[in-house]
Amino acid sequence: MSPTTEATPTLRDVLTTGQLANWLRTVPLPAERSRQMAKLDRSELRQLGLVLDADTAEDLLNSVDDELAAQALTAMDPPRAAVLIDSLDTDHTTDILREMPDRAAESVLSALPPARAAALRRMLAWPKDSAAAHMVPEALTVTPELTIAEAIAVVRHGAADPHFDSRNGAYIYVTDADRHLLGVVAFRDLVLADSVHRVATLMNEDVLWVSPLTDSEEAAQALDDANLVAMPVVDDERRLLGILTESAAADIAEEEATEDAERQGGSVPLELPYLRASPWLLWRKRIGWLLLLFVAEAYTGTVLRAFEQEMEAVVALAFFIPLLIGTGGNTGTQITTTLVRSLATGDVRLRDTPAVLAKEMSTGLLVALTMALAAVIRAWMLGVGPEVTLTVSLTVGAIVLWSAFIASILPPVLKMLRIDPALVSAPLIATVVDGTGLMIYFGIAHLTLSQLQGL
Amino acid sequence: MSPTTEATPTLRDVLTTGQLANWLRTVPLPAERSRQMAKLDRSELRQLGLVLDADTAEDLLNSVDDELAAQALTAMDPPRAAVLIDSLDTDHTTDILREMPDRAAESVLSALPPARAAALRRMLAWPKDSAAAHMVPEALTVTPELTIAEAIAVVRHGAADPHFDSRNGAYIYVTDADRHLLGVVAFRDLVLADSVHRVATLMNEDVLWVSPLTDSEEAAQALDDANLVAMPVVDDERRLLGILTESAAADIAEEEATEDAERQGGSVPLELPYLRASPWLLWRKRIGWLLLLFVAEAYTGTVLRAFEQEMEAVVALAFFIPLLIGTGGNTGTQITTTLVRSLATGDVRLRDTPAVLAKEMSTGLLVALTMALAAVIRAWMLGVGPEVTLTVSLTVGAIVLWSAFIASILPPVLKMLRIDPALVSAPLIATVVDGTGLMIYFGIAHLTLSQLQGL
Repeated sequence: MSPTTEATPTLRDVLTTGQLANWLRTVPLPAERSRQMAKLDRSELRQLGLVLDADTAEDLLNSVDDELAAQALTAMDPPRAAVLIDSLDTDHTTDILREMPDRAAESVLSALPPARAAALRRMLAWPKDSAAAHMVPEALTVTPELTIAEAIAVVRHGAADPHFDSRNGAYIYVTDADRHLLGVVAFRDLVLADSVHRVATLMNEDVLWVSPLTDSEEAAQALDDANLVAMPVVDDERRLLGILTESAAADIAEEEATEDAERQGGSVPLELPYLRASPWLLWRKRIGWLLLLFVAEAYTGTVLRAFEQEMEAVVALAFFIPLLIGTGGNTGTQITTTLVRSLATGDVRLRDTPAVLAKEMSTGLLVALTMALAAVIRAWMLGVGPEVTLTVSLTVGAIVLWSAFIASILPPVLKMLRIDPALVSAPLIATVVDGTGLMIYFGIAHLTLSQLQGL
Repeated sequence: MSPTTEATPTLRDVLTTGQLANWLRTVPLPAERSRQMAKLDRSELRQLGLVLDADTAEDLLNSVDDELAAQALTAMDPPRAAVLIDSLDTDHTTDILREMPDRAAESVLSALPPARAAALRRMLAWPKDSAAAHMVPEALTVTPELTIAEAIAVVRHGAADPHFDSRNGAYIYVTDADRHLLGVVAFRDLVLADSVHRVATLMNEDVLWVSPLTDSEEAAQALDDANLVAMPVVDDERRLLGILTESAAADIAEEEATEDAERQGGSVPLELPYLRASPWLLWRKRIGWLLLLFVAEAYTGTVLRAFEQEMEAVVALAFFIPLLIGTGGNTGTQITTTLVRSLATGDVRLRDTPAVLAKEMSTGLLVALTMALAAVIRAWMLGVGPEVTLTVSLTVGAIVLWSAFIASILPPVLKMLRIDPALVSAPLIATVVDGTGLMIYFGIAHLTLSQLQGL
């Protein structure tokens, strides 16, 4: 009714009206832009390529998800896609090209100026998980013999490169003529220093750096540990290849946290935003672990069949099966999630394993006593008699300790085997404890229940 | 044997030798420094206060965990602690003071110069979870009528403040005489511009900002969404209070990811590094959820007792209990972990709930069919006969769909109630599915098993 509730045009609407710049102003949020863009079909994405210009393309493609930008560019004519992608920074361009089908990426590269294409191909050659794949190649560099005034002039020129992102200019790297890294100067210090001094007098030679093939997560962690805004990536001969910025490190850390969360939930990481995953894709990412856990869990059926006579003799034993194995799974899950996260953030390292085990077994003892008491109360409420009550409460205590042991040991063991500890998911730990917990249960029952003495 | 394996001195060793600067050089990694510092007792921490000077204190306290720095400062004489903490940036000082017991923090504040103490008290007054509590109050500001050359002189002076951290100088904020925010200039642009122009001609008036009481996670997300290095925090009258930097946002995001992981594992977040949590503390953080889940899970005993006759009639039904409820829990956990993380990163919003439900029920159908087939194979292997096989495979399918429904609905419902969706932990979803899953199981058994017709 009121004029303010009038529907604002969607991205689809502006494809025909051409009011794209206006749409970008009224829809500033990246998430909302991505949402509207995700609704376009192939021919609409192609149309989008025709109404975008260098400015609007830079704004739009920088804000939406890389997968979405890649989809759009794949749908467009390669020469048109090349013009539009050339408005972006090198690192972002590389990210998008990586998400495109190989053949589409190749067509776009061929349509770019040869020097630009060569620079991008060099970036694309680094493995996806390496520090180099996440670096910005356009570092600002000066040589040590320049005066501060001369260095500022050089920097001014370097920053004029259209592919240079002003966010990458926190540090100026000092290199010799062959790009060997000699030192670093903070951009602010360069500007605030007396302009007649030489760069060599101002530079800090004690530079932390990473190798190009360092795992990207390790590199991001190193940058975070050192509290830096950027870190140079240098080759074996200490030649500067590019810089890893804090923004890149934050993106790597966020993506890793998401992947770990998915692994911890017993899935294979999606690697694309949830809302754009089809049911088929979700099924593929999940069914492997579900079937594997099903096969592992199926073992509980074998255990229970082996104790068929015991259950027939004392059917009350069956009442407590979900409660006992559930409590074991819960105890283990609490431990593994904390441990996996601590291993990921570097709070806990491999050599802390004995300390972790000691801490968890002490905690486990406190938890076991508490839960055994809770089990006594519950068994008494169900009225199963003193012998079953004793069996159940002893079993709860034993399963809690057993689960604590398994859960403290599995993540570091995987890490030692260079397998991601995040694979020790809640479902996995629950499954491991279920079968073994049942054996503990019937083992204790044999010792405590007079009805089972003959069996 | 070899000289290189000679033990390097620990932090405890240098307390008496006083070789602290040397120790800081040989132990550059923050994690290792924290580890060694955590081993010191109260009197050793007091001794540490005596051997530290302003430089070594800045280096050490900036690198170790805030909780550890707070512990050390609490152990020292307040005047000594005040001298040492005064070497740190305002935001870091505030973080450490927040971790100290109130009385100890008050003693340190009283021993600081009054103006400094007042600035810190203003920071401490902001709620812990607000954007303002994580901001840096020392923003570099200039007024719009200054020439670029004059502005650079002002900035140079502002940056000389010993509490100013050079990492916070990416943007210069333009304010009037009453600190009302008018615009922003990138530090680099200021320096690269022609020095005779006025700031007003260079500044960008289109500044994104946050209010001081904005939730810190939301503010961090906004900064990340907007791809900025810093965002100003302004009051209701648009007066500049400070800036929220990308480093602060990254810290907030990392802490939030850790807390969510712990909640997802069915614990209360630890809020301190794992290795420094005592078994008592771990017990306190975990036992509440364990008992709550135990009580909820105890319901399965009631369900099973209600179906005692059915289990006595067909004891093979008991064989499949862990497998069926385990599969339900696994399906649900996969969904909730993905959804909770997507809600946390903003990938999924509340209004996407219908789309999420549609996607998950479609995926659930595919998963249900696959798992039902797996159940047929497993039941056939156990040789339980065609009727129990039919019961088990129908139940697997039904439980998978039921679990998918519960798991897709619970996180958005909690979010709608303004409760953190991360509370829908793997143990919680497993527990919810266990009891209800058993009712589905025996319900289906009644329909399919001829032996149960009379019961």
